[in-house]
Amino acid sequence: MLQRIDHVGIACRSLEVAIEKYTSVFGLVVVSREVNEEQGVREAMLSLGGVLRETPRQPPAKSAGELAVSAAPSASYVQLLEPLADDTPVGKFLARRGEGLHHVGYAVANVTEALAVIGGAGSVRLIDERPRHGSMGASIAFLHPADLGGVLTELVQPHDA
Amino acid sequence: MLQRIDHVGIACRSLEVAIEKYTSVFGLVVVSREVNEEQGVREAMLSLGGVLRETPRQPPAKSAGELAVSAAPSASYVQLLEPLADDTPVGKFLARRGEGLHHVGYAVANVTEALAVIGGAGSVRLIDERPRHGSMGASIAFLHPADLGGVLTELVQPHDA
Repeated sequence: MLQRIDHVGIACRSLEVAIEKYTSVFGLVVVSREVNEEQGVREAMLSLGGVLRETPRQPPAKSAGELAVSAAPSASYVQLLEPLADDTPVGKFLARRGEGLHHVGYAVANVTEALAVIGGAGSVRLIDERPRHGSMGASIAFLHPADLGGVLTELVQPHDA
Repeated sequence: MLQRIDHVGIACRSLEVAIEKYTSVFGLVVVSREVNEEQGVREAMLSLGGVLRETPRQPPAKSAGELAVSAAPSASYVQLLEPLADDTPVGKFLARRGEGLHHVGYAVANVTEALAVIGGAGSVRLIDERPRHGSMGASIAFLHPADLGGVLTELVQPHDA
């Protein structure tokens, strides 16, 4: 069901400070910036570079800014999340635990089917009964951390899946 | 430098309970169990299944128990960590924060070279100045969470890299 780790979501107080850190220290590339009002976050997706090395038959990227990683089946990302307000989920997380790992997102082929299977089994509560809009056009759904050892878990069906 | 997300490390009170959860809910497969005295953990690595779907030219696995995922370049894992004692790093983490996401591990081609680059840049402190032994024969090193927005970050050079 879970194909790979799609991303780790990291809660930060300043998106710009976090982006500067991850691009300067690790050379990651920002491939998307979005404001998601529904989730109460300003966010950036930073691509890890391995896909291009691992699939040499892909046409080479023209420049770092043109990496076609969103279409690569095994791309993985660092998702940096800054809350839009203190009373948002990420804002409350920061107040309670400080900056750090917020959730993990796993790629699935079909998020609706995955929700049906997991919801049907009954041992993990669904935060989202139906998929909603995630980063970069993905369909996503969250599972309840209380039923998964404290890990807020996201299912991600990428836009191109 | 970072090729992909190799694994997420999840701190749990009972390794067996956590394994049962991840195998039953998501169908993950345990590919390795180890006790790492140096790190003070009993752990299991569970493979995510996407690699085999994404690289159809690999010979098919004979059974779920024989998945050759450790050799696949883009495999990713859930690492479940149970502390060997309360005064270990994971034991202290559980006492302070409870079960949940403990760290993220990124695959690198060469962990010694990555440490040299990151250490040389100077903005992130190295917990490990030299690589040490990680799961499944990998060479690993940790970076200080205080310099990475609260995220304990591991560099992983897989055994076959």
